[in-house]
Amino acid sequence: MKRRDFITGAAVGTAATVLSTGKLVQAQKAPAAMKDRVELVIVSTWGRDFPGLGTGAQRFAKRLQDMTDGRIHVSYFAANERVGAFDSFDEVASGNAQAYHAAEYYWKGKHPGWAYFTSVPFGLTYTEFNGWIRFGGGQELWDELAGEFGLKGLMCGNTGVQMGGWFRKEINSADDIKGLKMRIPGLGGDVMAKIGASPVSLPGGQIYENLVSGAIDATEWVGPWNDEVMKFYEAAKYYYYPGMHEPGTMVAVSFNKKFWESLSKTDQLIIEAAAAMENDVMMSEFNAKNGAALARLIRDQGVQLRKFSDDTYDSFGKAAEDVFAGVVNHSSLGRRIHESFDKARREIGGWSNLAEQAYVEQRNRVLGVS
Amino acid sequence: MKRRDFITGAAVGTAATVLSTGKLVQAQKAPAAMKDRVELVIVSTWGRDFPGLGTGAQRFAKRLQDMTDGRIHVSYFAANERVGAFDSFDEVASGNAQAYHAAEYYWKGKHPGWAYFTSVPFGLTYTEFNGWIRFGGGQELWDELAGEFGLKGLMCGNTGVQMGGWFRKEINSADDIKGLKMRIPGLGGDVMAKIGASPVSLPGGQIYENLVSGAIDATEWVGPWNDEVMKFYEAAKYYYYPGMHEPGTMVAVSFNKKFWESLSKTDQLIIEAAAAMENDVMMSEFNAKNGAALARLIRDQGVQLRKFSDDTYDSFGKAAEDVFAGVVNHSSLGRRIHESFDKARREIGGWSNLAEQAYVEQRNRVLGVS
Repeated sequence: MKRRDFITGAAVGTAATVLSTGKLVQAQKAPAAMKDRVELVIVSTWGRDFPGLGTGAQRFAKRLQDMTDGRIHVSYFAANERVGAFDSFDEVASGNAQAYHAAEYYWKGKHPGWAYFTSVPFGLTYTEFNGWIRFGGGQELWDELAGEFGLKGLMCGNTGVQMGGWFRKEINSADDIKGLKMRIPGLGGDVMAKIGASPVSLPGGQIYENLVSGAIDATEWVGPWNDEVMKFYEAAKYYYYPGMHEPGTMVAVSFNKKFWESLSKTDQLIIEAAAAMENDVMMSEFNAKNGAALARLIRDQGVQLRKFSDDTYDSFGKAAEDVFAGVVNHSSLGRRIHESFDKARREIGGWSNLAEQAYVEQRNRVLGVS
Repeated sequence: MKRRDFITGAAVGTAATVLSTGKLVQAQKAPAAMKDRVELVIVSTWGRDFPGLGTGAQRFAKRLQDMTDGRIHVSYFAANERVGAFDSFDEVASGNAQAYHAAEYYWKGKHPGWAYFTSVPFGLTYTEFNGWIRFGGGQELWDELAGEFGLKGLMCGNTGVQMGGWFRKEINSADDIKGLKMRIPGLGGDVMAKIGASPVSLPGGQIYENLVSGAIDATEWVGPWNDEVMKFYEAAKYYYYPGMHEPGTMVAVSFNKKFWESLSKTDQLIIEAAAAMENDVMMSEFNAKNGAALARLIRDQGVQLRKFSDDTYDSFGKAAEDVFAGVVNHSSLGRRIHESFDKARREIGGWSNLAEQAYVEQRNRVLGVS
């Protein structure tokens, strides 16, 4: 129980602080702050204290509670502390818990549209993604999809561009991927299947054992800072970039829709701000820590950094078009999500060419940043 | 007064909403929500309703008030509604107002370190900047600098990579910049001075008249969406990218330090979350709208899009090194800020090469996004 009570414990601490500031009498007479008390149980797909994804979800939960001085009381359960990682969806859709913190693409078996609200192959980078969700119609489509399942999602973290994955052998063309059993979820897995690999979806906690045992030949996870903790280098030395499958992986906090709608407008705004802050903070942490982690992996663990060839990327691109055709043909909502995403990719992605791309290329060339 | 009361008016609306929900009796008996009422006057350097920067600051002010159901009561004054744009600093440092929303580099005459907390030449992109501020020691150095002036700043918006500026003639090398009177603030202006231009710093509301009258030959402002509103194309047709001077311009909400420290921890957390959300939302809006605005400028206004040559960029780079040497020699704090920034630029900037840069280059090549 100790681990489960991590957040609850923090709440007790907060209450004790209130006592010591002399507000106790007022609180006992008219505990106004508790009048609109909200009980919020969050389940998640990340292991307790898992760096980046897990610690970010926990940071969000703690911040939300502290912002309201405990009035919104948050009980956070990491994967397997209340339900298994992939049972989070049913737990919240059914109303047993009020929210989950997860990657929405885990639910693509229920509808392929879910993948677009995490990351898709040849998709959007972090800033492009935020532009689409907030100002390009993305949130409205997400609301429509989530609404069909009794849910309401908010952006609540991002890993940035992910690495292409860990392989036991060099990948010089798409032919080298044929026949590989690879852990790669979402539509990225479907792209790999088109090329001839066998994709599997496993939660983070089960990847290492499958890679070491040989049950899978390759895996992607996140990026250097996260992957270092997973010790995949013990079983696969070739580390490829850039990942085509998840170029700005958004993780969501999604609420039971009836619960969300029962909240006051004020509480919705507080939760939205806490989630938006975590969106920014998690991305910042990945960007701040990936570079140094990659240097350690190469220096201390003998990891071989490799770049996917243009040829391999061309094959990925062709397969991705086939995968997207499947989404468009799945349903009207699938088509509308894809078309909205594709419009954002062309418009915001075109701007990226003149902005970050053109600038960083010149800066890093002039300064020799590598 | 009407314009000044924009936000106050919203607050009255919120109060009326409370009345209509039946909470009035409770509120009259024990107006608990107002017990910890906070009066917050924000002055800013942006014109009322100016797209992006102004509307973003106003959105932040409104959100903060709405998140607390009016308990934190925000009175927002755009430039010249209470004090002139560049008088914001003194207004807040003196305690006459509680906060300003501004670009910190406007205060570089007081200390060159301020420039680093907006954007500097050959500086960090949006995601790199956030990484530095949140996890690379940036916030701590900002706190130290701001503390010397009785202030405390938070990130509260970003324009992303700015365009290089509007010129009446083509710029084929640094020689073509010599002798130009150009509106360009911050250390970017100092770089232009090293090359032989005469930089001036003007608030947004004064640029157009100076460009049209010929008092200045060239100007930079922000990017296509913002610049379109300013109608600079009426006086200068050549629009250059990528801007070396502001590659991820952060705008801040900075508080009178004594006021900030008088707030409860809860209120500090609420304000931090509201500011972090605006940081993300403003960046999203610029990214979502810049591309379409640029297309309109080229199609409807005859704007000539031009890319700075490698040769010009090399000259910018050399001049920037001289400018940075001036900061390092200015003071111990100047040196420490520069060194912390430079470390982030190498570490996070190096990661950018493998992440966004490598990925977007491949994606846009394969898909033909331009």
